[in-house]
Amino acid sequence: MGKVIVSFTMSLDGFIAGPNISPEDAMGEGGEQLHDWLFDGSSEIDRDMAREMPANVGAVILGKRTFDLGLPHWEDTPFPAPSFVLTHEKREPLKMKSSAFTFINGGVESAVQQAKAAASEKDIIVMGANVAQQLLRAKLADEIVLQLAPVLLGQGTRLFDGIGDETIELKNTRTIQSPLVTHLRYQIL
Amino acid sequence: MGKVIVSFTMSLDGFIAGPNISPEDAMGEGGEQLHDWLFDGSSEIDRDMAREMPANVGAVILGKRTFDLGLPHWEDTPFPAPSFVLTHEKREPLKMKSSAFTFINGGVESAVQQAKAAASEKDIIVMGANVAQQLLRAKLADEIVLQLAPVLLGQGTRLFDGIGDETIELKNTRTIQSPLVTHLRYQIL
Repeated sequence: MGKVIVSFTMSLDGFIAGPNISPEDAMGEGGEQLHDWLFDGSSEIDRDMAREMPANVGAVILGKRTFDLGLPHWEDTPFPAPSFVLTHEKREPLKMKSSAFTFINGGVESAVQQAKAAASEKDIIVMGANVAQQLLRAKLADEIVLQLAPVLLGQGTRLFDGIGDETIELKNTRTIQSPLVTHLRYQIL
Repeated sequence: MGKVIVSFTMSLDGFIAGPNISPEDAMGEGGEQLHDWLFDGSSEIDRDMAREMPANVGAVILGKRTFDLGLPHWEDTPFPAPSFVLTHEKREPLKMKSSAFTFINGGVESAVQQAKAAASEKDIIVMGANVAQQLLRAKLADEIVLQLAPVLLGQGTRLFDGIGDETIELKNTRTIQSPLVTHLRYQIL
């Protein structure tokens, strides 16, 4: 069965985007630099890591806000895999170039169920802090993959916020330092 | 000149202590496990790291709350070095076994000045999230040393909170993974 992976680039102070996110500035003020490791291209480690993730993606679960902000940039599904958008809106599936968006009204449980069926043995990637938090609270996530960026943003969208008051134990399964970012991987116990 | 080092063990979701801190439970609920790496003793990396810090401490800056909570446990200064307590209270220095507490009413600038004079070439260690935040806001810290613990606490005392809305750029200078914790070191640019 495919694993549900919460995967983000996060500042050392816990933000995955800067403040004042808008369609023109989807990463928020100062947030763009979080993805330097993806676009710089100077480190072989970063290039390997950037390739590793998409190759294993069998399905995507994303929030409505991420969908709205991302679609004009992607002009496709974010990865070439079935993508499930959590929303209260009833809407027909949207066929894109490499795959389709399906709109889920039944909450994260339903999204995970459908994503797992679609992904078969491959991974299910989570996009959007709010969806990640819902999955962590519902104990439906299997792994956390973080690229920890050497910056304190001071404000923005926190990844780990409102994830409940129960301690979640992790096991570090990989730590690789590149010149631009720390690649961390955890199994959720 | 000695460096001002913000050094903490932090959960992956950014907490340095659990909720409901009390004199009997200075690390808060669930917070004790953050320090497993210090007390477990099974990893040579962790043992080396635990030894490295105290050996270089020339002075300590701490908050009044950390002082009040810590004193009954330490029954001494937290490190064998002059220790400067930020407080509004006027109070005579308190001589302990290995060094003394001096009470500073002039804010972080004054504390750093006096700590640097006392530490000479050695490092100045910061204890207490609130003091660390004040030093980061005032741009008086030189390095951040973190032990990143593989756990999500969900609540407690956040290390990086209220540090202002200006981006602080860092440079990773060391990453070492032990079985229990990720040792990270950053220069503040």
